[in-house]
Amino acid sequence: MKSTCVRRLLVCVALSVLGCGISDDATARDEGMWLLTAPPRAMLKERYGFDPSPAWLDHVQRSAVRISAGGSGSIVSPDGLVMTNHHVGSEVLSQLSTKARDLMETGFYARTRAEELKCPDLELDVLWEIKDVTSEVNAGVKEGMSPADAGEVRQRAIAEIARHAQDESKLKCEVVTLYQGARYHLYCYRRYTDVRLVFAPEQAIAYFGGDTDNFEFPRFNLDVCFFRIYEDGLPIQAEHSLTWSGGSREGDLALVLGHPGSTQRLYTNDHLKFMRYTMIPARLRQLWRAEVKWQEFMGRSAEDQRLGNEDYLGVTNSRKAFTGQLAGLLDPAVMGAKASAESRLRDAVRANPEWNKRWGDGWDVISKAEHERLAWFDRWFVFERGLRSDLIGYARDIVRHAEETSKPNGERLREFRESALASLYTRLYSPAPMHDALEIERIAGALSFMAENLGGDDPAVLTALAGKSPKARAEELVLGTSLKDPAARRKLVEGGSAAVAESKDPMIVFWKAMDKESRALRSRYEREVEAAEQAGYAKIAAAKFAVEGENTYPDATFSLRLSFGAIKGYAENGRDIPPYTDFAGMYERYADRKGQVGFDLPERWLRGKGRLDLTTPFNFVCGADIIGGNSGSPVVNTKGEVIGLIFDGNIHSLVGAFQYDGTQNRAVAVDSRAIIEALRKLYDAGPLADELQGKGR
Amino acid sequence: MKSTCVRRLLVCVALSVLGCGISDDATARDEGMWLLTAPPRAMLKERYGFDPSPAWLDHVQRSAVRISAGGSGSIVSPDGLVMTNHHVGSEVLSQLSTKARDLMETGFYARTRAEELKCPDLELDVLWEIKDVTSEVNAGVKEGMSPADAGEVRQRAIAEIARHAQDESKLKCEVVTLYQGARYHLYCYRRYTDVRLVFAPEQAIAYFGGDTDNFEFPRFNLDVCFFRIYEDGLPIQAEHSLTWSGGSREGDLALVLGHPGSTQRLYTNDHLKFMRYTMIPARLRQLWRAEVKWQEFMGRSAEDQRLGNEDYLGVTNSRKAFTGQLAGLLDPAVMGAKASAESRLRDAVRANPEWNKRWGDGWDVISKAEHERLAWFDRWFVFERGLRSDLIGYARDIVRHAEETSKPNGERLREFRESALASLYTRLYSPAPMHDALEIERIAGALSFMAENLGGDDPAVLTALAGKSPKARAEELVLGTSLKDPAARRKLVEGGSAAVAESKDPMIVFWKAMDKESRALRSRYEREVEAAEQAGYAKIAAAKFAVEGENTYPDATFSLRLSFGAIKGYAENGRDIPPYTDFAGMYERYADRKGQVGFDLPERWLRGKGRLDLTTPFNFVCGADIIGGNSGSPVVNTKGEVIGLIFDGNIHSLVGAFQYDGTQNRAVAVDSRAIIEALRKLYDAGPLADELQGKGR
Repeated sequence: MKSTCVRRLLVCVALSVLGCGISDDATARDEGMWLLTAPPRAMLKERYGFDPSPAWLDHVQRSAVRISAGGSGSIVSPDGLVMTNHHVGSEVLSQLSTKARDLMETGFYARTRAEELKCPDLELDVLWEIKDVTSEVNAGVKEGMSPADAGEVRQRAIAEIARHAQDESKLKCEVVTLYQGARYHLYCYRRYTDVRLVFAPEQAIAYFGGDTDNFEFPRFNLDVCFFRIYEDGLPIQAEHSLTWSGGSREGDLALVLGHPGSTQRLYTNDHLKFMRYTMIPARLRQLWRAEVKWQEFMGRSAEDQRLGNEDYLGVTNSRKAFTGQLAGLLDPAVMGAKASAESRLRDAVRANPEWNKRWGDGWDVISKAEHERLAWFDRWFVFERGLRSDLIGYARDIVRHAEETSKPNGERLREFRESALASLYTRLYSPAPMHDALEIERIAGALSFMAENLGGDDPAVLTALAGKSPKARAEELVLGTSLKDPAARRKLVEGGSAAVAESKDPMIVFWKAMDKESRALRSRYEREVEAAEQAGYAKIAAAKFAVEGENTYPDATFSLRLSFGAIKGYAENGRDIPPYTDFAGMYERYADRKGQVGFDLPERWLRGKGRLDLTTPFNFVCGADIIGGNSGSPVVNTKGEVIGLIFDGNIHSLVGAFQYDGTQNRAVAVDSRAIIEALRKLYDAGPLADELQGKGR
Repeated sequence: MKSTCVRRLLVCVALSVLGCGISDDATARDEGMWLLTAPPRAMLKERYGFDPSPAWLDHVQRSAVRISAGGSGSIVSPDGLVMTNHHVGSEVLSQLSTKARDLMETGFYARTRAEELKCPDLELDVLWEIKDVTSEVNAGVKEGMSPADAGEVRQRAIAEIARHAQDESKLKCEVVTLYQGARYHLYCYRRYTDVRLVFAPEQAIAYFGGDTDNFEFPRFNLDVCFFRIYEDGLPIQAEHSLTWSGGSREGDLALVLGHPGSTQRLYTNDHLKFMRYTMIPARLRQLWRAEVKWQEFMGRSAEDQRLGNEDYLGVTNSRKAFTGQLAGLLDPAVMGAKASAESRLRDAVRANPEWNKRWGDGWDVISKAEHERLAWFDRWFVFERGLRSDLIGYARDIVRHAEETSKPNGERLREFRESALASLYTRLYSPAPMHDALEIERIAGALSFMAENLGGDDPAVLTALAGKSPKARAEELVLGTSLKDPAARRKLVEGGSAAVAESKDPMIVFWKAMDKESRALRSRYEREVEAAEQAGYAKIAAAKFAVEGENTYPDATFSLRLSFGAIKGYAENGRDIPPYTDFAGMYERYADRKGQVGFDLPERWLRGKGRLDLTTPFNFVCGADIIGGNSGSPVVNTKGEVIGLIFDGNIHSLVGAFQYDGTQNRAVAVDSRAIIEALRKLYDAGPLADELQGKGR
């Protein structure tokens, strides 16, 4: 649980998603985050001569991994080795670090299985079964129901469908809302919680170039780390795992399997305006504030720098991503294109009386909901997006767990449904260490943010601060609570309502005082916004299917998708950017920017330069359509072999939240050859390279 | 002209000021920013046995310098040498730097007069004459006038008083509003505009510890630079200049002559709440945003780092200052004390029917004004605090100059009155170089800020952006304007209304489209807020004089004040902080924090360590009551000899904007002995040290 969860391509799941139409423009040839149950067969065949077989699709699906920290990964050896990004694993690396042993600084390599380090609360999910449950979800919805009531009926159905599936299959089951409510799929996962760290390089090479080069290309990052999945104390013997390739070439088709978090491509213009003028500015204001606060915190000492690093990186990454999104929404070209597309679709609907009757008001339903929420947006934002920290999260989950689990499954908040409880307990009972200084900073920041936004005479602020300054109140809460101890959390959870009611723990008392308004705002959001969006977008999606055909993909939902595109460069400011970089280029950039923040290199890379083949391809770009959440996605060739590892998108990919433009939008990956070269020549990690390359088995 | 003008103790002048009562508490013994015409004689005599003679006061007054960049200084040799802080001179250092010669990086020392570098637009003012003009200012105010009308009458009188005085004396004359309108003083200055750079150290030693140590103590900063005043091509022969001391000791009385910018100690509780919940949060949101933007800008290249440095430092400094202020206002102890003091005064007024009739509604007048401005605060903030850059400032001044100078003197906006025009032209015709990249960044930032805050459908935003994204629009304006050339600016100013009306220059066209609303908001502020504050605070001040006596000092107004206090340490978190640091301590801190941002040392200081007497006192603290604007103030002993140079306040001084607490509030100064030691041993600047110490004359 982190107070901010967006990191480069590692993104929180948003709930608003819808199907996206494919532009027929040549610049959009590689568009789409496709369902594995409906891959873009015709496009792949026509453009790249590739026709994935059901077995191919099944194999890559069951080799792909969703990572609870918010990213993607893949199983890359029969012994359960999992590859993802360093920046996806970095929260774990921080948890496993101490003042004396900073894995972010030094990197890590387990030479033997015994040395592999158990991660406190990492959960890996592998998508095993998929089923369309649209009709079951909608079965209880009656003609004439309000969107809010229909939404409630659907949520009850969803909770029960997931529980039944889970009871039957013993898998972790979720119902995924696709095309913003036009389709519902049941996804059942194999769930793994004994995950161990095998290898990570130093942060300095994983994130070489820092914030300056983040979302840019050319790049030179070894943004990789490896974990291993265990069950019953032994590495799993994976039924499916990806094999390693001999490398790729310019023009090759690159296929990306991953979990894009959230896109808003089918948002209506009014909804985009809400993003443009309300939501993104609010997020940016919060992020600018947080970025400055974390820098101040980190400046205090070397240890504070280490402690604050993970929150800080998350904040800077989100800030850069939202800055790019806002720039896109402030660009008249982007908004103009969205407006024309919407007009065309609405005209087509209006021209058909039957369509108009069924779907014509879809856009207005959205507009009304986004407009009306403005009246309570600030308050909602403070409670639901501002009031966050590890301890606040624990207190909230414990207080709500007592109340929610006493209700019928279908009436509970999502995260307390039967199908979600196992993951909740994994988070709640995490043995990861907590640091007072860090939590005081987070909570003081959250309380100040609340006071700055609601005003200090606000009853909720008065209650939250209890007559103290934000800093003093945060110290009191953090130093006084027992919730830093997982055993104390478990005791409260298992004690149920009575234990929570009696508890004098200051964090529990604090949250009990906040819970009523927090719940009310969440409930209002779910009933008045989310349900209205689902009602409206279901109509718009139906209209779109009717007008443009069903050959389309849904907006991203942090569920498994297939993206594709050729390995190719692009033009920027009149310059041609080639698709590959190499080690030599990294040393040049190092020499050029030496001494500037983010451009240090680890000693190992400075001393070891002579051992490396400097012509080794290091990073590359391809046209695959990805977004935050795709971090750690494997890039495979048509044989399903690993040719790279997605870790970023270029600056032109940020507007991809709303619109894909294949002329410049590129996914950025670590080349598989760079991983092997660095493991063998610099990290003395020959056995790991052998395992990846399938040698010595 | 900078888009942000707060740097450490270098502060924009705010207009709302009022007299401050002295607490009788022992912790407040050294409180006060006293008028030189009403020094705290009794206190100085009783506590420190010091009774400044009229000649002493006259001498230090005429040795003190006000610096147009927003700080303080002093004349420290008969040849017109002026001492101030490096961070006060840094804007000039940036203007005099190029890609090839970065004075911030290398420092500067003119070994001969011929090598002294002329500053493009620095203006130094020396306060020469003072006169109370309260009755003249109020002469035209009639019983029963509204605050807004009375304010207008006073403004007309002020304009004419200043013009007459200026015509007669040939000095630069200003009417200063003291005790927020209870008193008006006419200040006439000797004005100098041929100012040349003599010496500056490297920024790395002037600002050692960076943002981390800013507003902290212990400190180790050589935050000093020297200029020289010229007239008719020769150094002035100063009638008054400060001599150098042999040093100070713990317990000595330190006297500070400087120009504190703005305090809000006598603000009513409702006015403080406006600061707490509206003004400071708005400023902080703007600053957090700007800090992140400038970091991104500076990360792009070494040259962008150099260009953005000055804006960036200004922003980080303001952010830290406002953070401290907000923390104070969020502290129930501070607000509780303010509330009790206000209750006591109001009770005393209510208890006396005559007083109650005359002054009883003073507090309500303020409350009403601060409350009613909330309705238009956001817009006012965007136009009057957000829409800033060098080019925007030029365009605004040129457009307004044409209109304003055609009006009678008494009806003009302040900065276009006859007495203010010379300073305006100095700024407007500055030959300082302009950098496209910097201005594009500033203007794109200002336009985005506007769009984020007003919404993109706002007519003003639509006009400002002209259908382009903020970045594209900024590029168009900056690349297309001729205003980067001082000759072009002069031609437009001299062409008057006709030239402005005909101009197709994009910046002029842009501002002509913005001017109407900007003027309306400013006028609304002046009539509805400023005039109401003056009316209300004049009553409160009169009540305060009646209840508590007149032995008090007015809130700071960026005019000359005397502060005082013993050189003494303080306790913090249970530790005793001694009052002096030394060079040895600096090298220890360097070793401790090596490699962290802000803790580099110049090569000169690393190589030259062996030559220094490491026991030389480096920085010290004293209890003198100072605030932003005091940067560069000389610290003198009772003989009027320089013992130090104010450059900062500690973290406990930040709440000093609202309340002085002598237990921990400390002013931070460079020790005079450190300046001499560094000049002689490290900078090979013996002649400059000789001039300071009066040797060889």
